[in-house]
Amino acid sequence: MSIIVQKYGGTSVADVERIKNVAGRLCRTHEQGHRVLAVVSAMGDSTDRLLKMAHEISAEPPERELDMLFSTGERISVALLAMAIHELGHEAISLSGAQAGIHTTTTHTKARITDIDTRRLSEALDGGKIVLVAGFQGISPDEDITTLGRGGSDTTAVALAGALGAESCEIYTDVEGVYSADPNLVKEARKLNAVSYEEMLEMAATGAEVLMLRSVEYAQKYGIPLRVRSSFSDDPGTLVKEEDEQMEKAVVSAITHTEDESKLTLLRVPDKPGIAATVFGALSEAEVNVDMIIQNVSEQGTTDISFTVIQDELPAAQQALDRICDELGTAYIIGEQMGKVSIVGAGMKSYPGVAAKMFRTLADNDINIEMISTSSIKVSCVIERAQVEQAVKALHAAFGLGDD
Amino acid sequence: MSIIVQKYGGTSVADVERIKNVAGRLCRTHEQGHRVLAVVSAMGDSTDRLLKMAHEISAEPPERELDMLFSTGERISVALLAMAIHELGHEAISLSGAQAGIHTTTTHTKARITDIDTRRLSEALDGGKIVLVAGFQGISPDEDITTLGRGGSDTTAVALAGALGAESCEIYTDVEGVYSADPNLVKEARKLNAVSYEEMLEMAATGAEVLMLRSVEYAQKYGIPLRVRSSFSDDPGTLVKEEDEQMEKAVVSAITHTEDESKLTLLRVPDKPGIAATVFGALSEAEVNVDMIIQNVSEQGTTDISFTVIQDELPAAQQALDRICDELGTAYIIGEQMGKVSIVGAGMKSYPGVAAKMFRTLADNDINIEMISTSSIKVSCVIERAQVEQAVKALHAAFGLGDD
Repeated sequence: MSIIVQKYGGTSVADVERIKNVAGRLCRTHEQGHRVLAVVSAMGDSTDRLLKMAHEISAEPPERELDMLFSTGERISVALLAMAIHELGHEAISLSGAQAGIHTTTTHTKARITDIDTRRLSEALDGGKIVLVAGFQGISPDEDITTLGRGGSDTTAVALAGALGAESCEIYTDVEGVYSADPNLVKEARKLNAVSYEEMLEMAATGAEVLMLRSVEYAQKYGIPLRVRSSFSDDPGTLVKEEDEQMEKAVVSAITHTEDESKLTLLRVPDKPGIAATVFGALSEAEVNVDMIIQNVSEQGTTDISFTVIQDELPAAQQALDRICDELGTAYIIGEQMGKVSIVGAGMKSYPGVAAKMFRTLADNDINIEMISTSSIKVSCVIERAQVEQAVKALHAAFGLGDD
Repeated sequence: MSIIVQKYGGTSVADVERIKNVAGRLCRTHEQGHRVLAVVSAMGDSTDRLLKMAHEISAEPPERELDMLFSTGERISVALLAMAIHELGHEAISLSGAQAGIHTTTTHTKARITDIDTRRLSEALDGGKIVLVAGFQGISPDEDITTLGRGGSDTTAVALAGALGAESCEIYTDVEGVYSADPNLVKEARKLNAVSYEEMLEMAATGAEVLMLRSVEYAQKYGIPLRVRSSFSDDPGTLVKEEDEQMEKAVVSAITHTEDESKLTLLRVPDKPGIAATVFGALSEAEVNVDMIIQNVSEQGTTDISFTVIQDELPAAQQALDRICDELGTAYIIGEQMGKVSIVGAGMKSYPGVAAKMFRTLADNDINIEMISTSSIKVSCVIERAQVEQAVKALHAAFGLGDD
């Protein structure tokens, strides 16, 4: 009998009524003859409320204790969901990450799964129970509770699906699937029926928030097809899977964007070996995540290095640069209010001129491109944040991504 | 270095400010050179809120899932408290019941502690850490989370104090200690400096809510002195310990009362062997807790049997009696609005006339006694609920328990 893994995010279990709705979905899947395992997130904004209390106590709470705190939210969800399933006459069992056999590294608040002991899961599934696993958490070799960081419940679901050899992994959320652009910005945005892992990875990396990068990486690694769909409708959603012959290879599948970038440019840096290593080494030590990096051609023995960081990390980036700029004999300028717009499509590889069309479209809209970065299936442009919405709309129309 | 166990109830950690206050207390005890372990309850009414959600989902939620749900509250408390202690510059570690090595029976929602594996606790205490254990919970042989029922955190504290050979166990609450009567009813009520285990057991059994019966039983069994005190003051509170020579043996130490009793009387029951077994067997099967039982002297081959139950269990008691009354050829009457007033004192044993003085005091106040039950250090009278307050005040004055 096939195993179906379903993952329900916080909005899908935000209140008692929604928990009952999810229980109904799980029971229907069970009645269709599947073995069913659900991974569940904390209810609505409950994790935010816990974090707020933690911050009222300490500006920098110990991460081990944050994990003890946060892991409670998912436990509440699975316990209540088990009750709702019992009420519908099915058997269910809630399991914490530790009980579900999810072993992780000891890196608190962003642990990685190292191993899954499926013994208890298999026993419960074989016994006909609907198994409910608290998402986002596991247990370290020290028997401490760990959490998996942002998107951790998606990762839990995909990892369990892989470990159990599940037939599929359905990620339930509050949108109908993966869209050709953010429907909040572009009213013509179209739900995509299928995208490849590679496309989804690029989309996640460039601003699509529906799936976290890490869970897509896991799914690709273990070859688990993911279905992203809404817990509030019966729409089949979007299938994320290995690229294959049948898959419609759109030149451009989607326009993604971010609106929280800042750009830093180091001016007239000596153009000699080791400079980039110094700069990005300093940023790495300060735990600043650098997104895009551009080094311009050298003139008269110096070069300009530009890079982007998310705006929240700008102060840390500045501190790191302040420490090394004297040593390097350089200065930097900041573009704080930046954004990024990207086109993603598996078909791009075999169609020349896609990037040129993107640049032309932006130019026609008087949008200046500050930085460009490409991969084989993606082109990203850093632009003024105020022009992001206009850029997304224009690109969506230019590449004909709307309905019909 | 001696180990001090402190237990903080829900009101002591009801909000962030109070958690900081508890952190300060623990750090001060640690600075005095003790090894410190704290058992902590869920914040304020958080368990009630979880129960409310559970009941919105199911009238009778599975008890295993209730335990998964409830156990989260104490974990939140210990994690936040650990953060507050770190903020004060001390080291702390929060542990769930399972992590603290608290093994229990599988009886969900009212499990009993079977064994405590102190390995991890001792390691942390020896390492100079303030150890914070989530109260009220443990782990069953099936590796399921269990809870210990009402007063479970007190039980956790006393059991850990016993297992670790702690010097003392301090139960912090929102009152200054054990009083000679409920201070809400009797403004002259006096805080008692010391009471014996036996007195405390009788007081807990007859309505004093400051300590649960079970935790006192544990403390007595393991010879752990308990100190009941307020987390909001420096008053030393009340010491509960083995009766000894130094202890002031008041004839009457305290007046206790309850206001949630109902009385049932089976009329003209055949006076022959096995009848009581049938009646109370049926009640036991219905999980009704019977408090006081009186069988009147027999007249003409029949007898009347009266007993009390807490009012919440009256419907279940009636159902059980309805099933057997036909068979026994009897009927029953109900006194729904009953209460109970008790006098408790270790010195009572050696002073005759104490019961008579109690009955005289009640009679002088026109209070009719419906049932009487005695032990060597206690006399309880069931009376009309409306007269309980008056009875408590009159007895408190008659036995001279007020200040001076």
